[in-house]
Amino acid sequence: MNIKRLTPTLQDVATAANVSTATVSRCLNFPDKVAERTRTKVSTAIRDLGYTPNFGARAMAARRTHTIGAIIPTMDNAIFARGLEAFQNELRLHGFTMLVASTSYRPEIEEEQIRALVSRGADALLLIGHARHPEIYRFLEAQGVPALVTWAFDADLARPSIGFDNRAAMRDMATRVIELGHRRLAHISADTKHNDRAEARLLGIQDAMLSAGLNLDDLRLVETTYGIEEGAVALEALVTTGPSPTAIFCANDVLAVGALRRARELGVSVPGEVSIVGFDDIELAQIAYPALTTVHVPHREMGRRAARALVNLVKTGAPFESVELETWPVFRDTLGRVSDD
Amino acid sequence: MNIKRLTPTLQDVATAANVSTATVSRCLNFPDKVAERTRTKVSTAIRDLGYTPNFGARAMAARRTHTIGAIIPTMDNAIFARGLEAFQNELRLHGFTMLVASTSYRPEIEEEQIRALVSRGADALLLIGHARHPEIYRFLEAQGVPALVTWAFDADLARPSIGFDNRAAMRDMATRVIELGHRRLAHISADTKHNDRAEARLLGIQDAMLSAGLNLDDLRLVETTYGIEEGAVALEALVTTGPSPTAIFCANDVLAVGALRRARELGVSVPGEVSIVGFDDIELAQIAYPALTTVHVPHREMGRRAARALVNLVKTGAPFESVELETWPVFRDTLGRVSDD
Repeated sequence: MNIKRLTPTLQDVATAANVSTATVSRCLNFPDKVAERTRTKVSTAIRDLGYTPNFGARAMAARRTHTIGAIIPTMDNAIFARGLEAFQNELRLHGFTMLVASTSYRPEIEEEQIRALVSRGADALLLIGHARHPEIYRFLEAQGVPALVTWAFDADLARPSIGFDNRAAMRDMATRVIELGHRRLAHISADTKHNDRAEARLLGIQDAMLSAGLNLDDLRLVETTYGIEEGAVALEALVTTGPSPTAIFCANDVLAVGALRRARELGVSVPGEVSIVGFDDIELAQIAYPALTTVHVPHREMGRRAARALVNLVKTGAPFESVELETWPVFRDTLGRVSDD
Repeated sequence: MNIKRLTPTLQDVATAANVSTATVSRCLNFPDKVAERTRTKVSTAIRDLGYTPNFGARAMAARRTHTIGAIIPTMDNAIFARGLEAFQNELRLHGFTMLVASTSYRPEIEEEQIRALVSRGADALLLIGHARHPEIYRFLEAQGVPALVTWAFDADLARPSIGFDNRAAMRDMATRVIELGHRRLAHISADTKHNDRAEARLLGIQDAMLSAGLNLDDLRLVETTYGIEEGAVALEALVTTGPSPTAIFCANDVLAVGALRRARELGVSVPGEVSIVGFDDIELAQIAYPALTTVHVPHREMGRRAARALVNLVKTGAPFESVELETWPVFRDTLGRVSDD
């Protein structure tokens, strides 16, 4: 909730209601501690001024449901499962219930789901990534439903998030891959236009290439949708046509295990002929054979912290504070050194 | 909704409201087509008699939200993901939204989630398996929220479901395993006390053993929770202590891929020394190495049909019809023949 952008201000409400700003603030954050008459005056001023109610006004106006909505791009392949499980467990400790909606990575479905959860009375929402139509953020502010962004962290954005820097995480992995002698690089990515995490991961590879003096035009890019079969198809295209890469970055582990499977089916040795790295470190990464080298994401910690921040906000009105979590490369068996170059 | 168990009857309501039973039925199923005055009379009779409102009464009393709740045991490992995705896609075609809650396989959490979804206005619920406290079914009837059971089919139960016969499915697989010469059998199962699907799968193995003249006491049973690491631990216990099995049935693919991984780590050849079979045929089964022999479950069809049945019920009041879907064994690379017996 970027309160700075809201007009009129708290001061305007205080003046109109003939109370102090502290009283308005108390009304918003601790309505139970304010006399009925004062609350009514402040409510009226808020309504008359068209002051967009934020979470506090909502808390004053409506009974809390102790329900938090989580809107994730997919339930498939358990990409978000571990984080959500930690999120739900932490919510339960505080008497909150989680309801989940999934969007199939489609912005128009996300919008429907956000509206559904708001109209079903969710106290607050957990969202994945920053990128969505500004209208949605305005809708949430107008409805007084706070939303916390996770799975992303971008120091340049004012909107708070509890997540990690996708670009830096992939840059670190790409730097290590390049240090092992790889020059012919490829990237199997999700649609980077509607997915800020996928976009950031691509930028991270490019950052590392530029630092190493490589030409960005030499990165072969395949954009597809997240899926095991999609990763397999992309791998096949990369190794059977054009200049064959020695290392393939996959934008997530799901694409990577699909790529790995197809390499095995084609008799392409991993990492002997081609190295494959993933992103996320979900359980698939360890089930894959050979076990997948990937970027570890602290799913459980992210889920727990997001839950605490949302509970705290709903209960006390304390605004979110952004938290950047660390990620790191996990070296298993699919990344090798280039020796014959 | 087992309407037979409800008292008073539709006839009692008709008599009290001085209308025909057809009119009461029309009020319940197509409230929009009944005059306001008639609707009021019938409503009053329903209330005065304490006629437990079923879905129809609810449709008459409250605006539909076009939200269907799905309550699943876990989001982990995508066990339910493919079925839910098909369920959601089909719901969307009819203008309905899905909200999901997960229970961590714990009955007390399921009860919380059911209450949360009902109080958030879900028109109907999708539930997994039949086994839950009768009080929950009574609560749903009293609230007028219909619930459809999936992932299970039991011809002996009056409650409708759209699913498959877990017992027969595992019996078929066990019969094939025994035909390949396996006599020293083991089963890695979930807790069979609170999970009717797990219980049915165990019974299916026992059915096949009895048909083949085997002694049920010779089945080594490990009960654990569904998880990759749990499957790995169970496999290790089975191959390092006691009489070593030649075939291990896993109650789902998640346990099976964990067992497979630990076998590889211990240098136990699959299927050379021990065969491993799963259940569900989720994507993990194909990612595993060797690819997993398992029982195929028609996740997508189950999800689509469940969605159509629920939409139909909410829109027209048409009661559910039970549907039994087929399953079949999928033979990949983890089941071998016993030759040295």
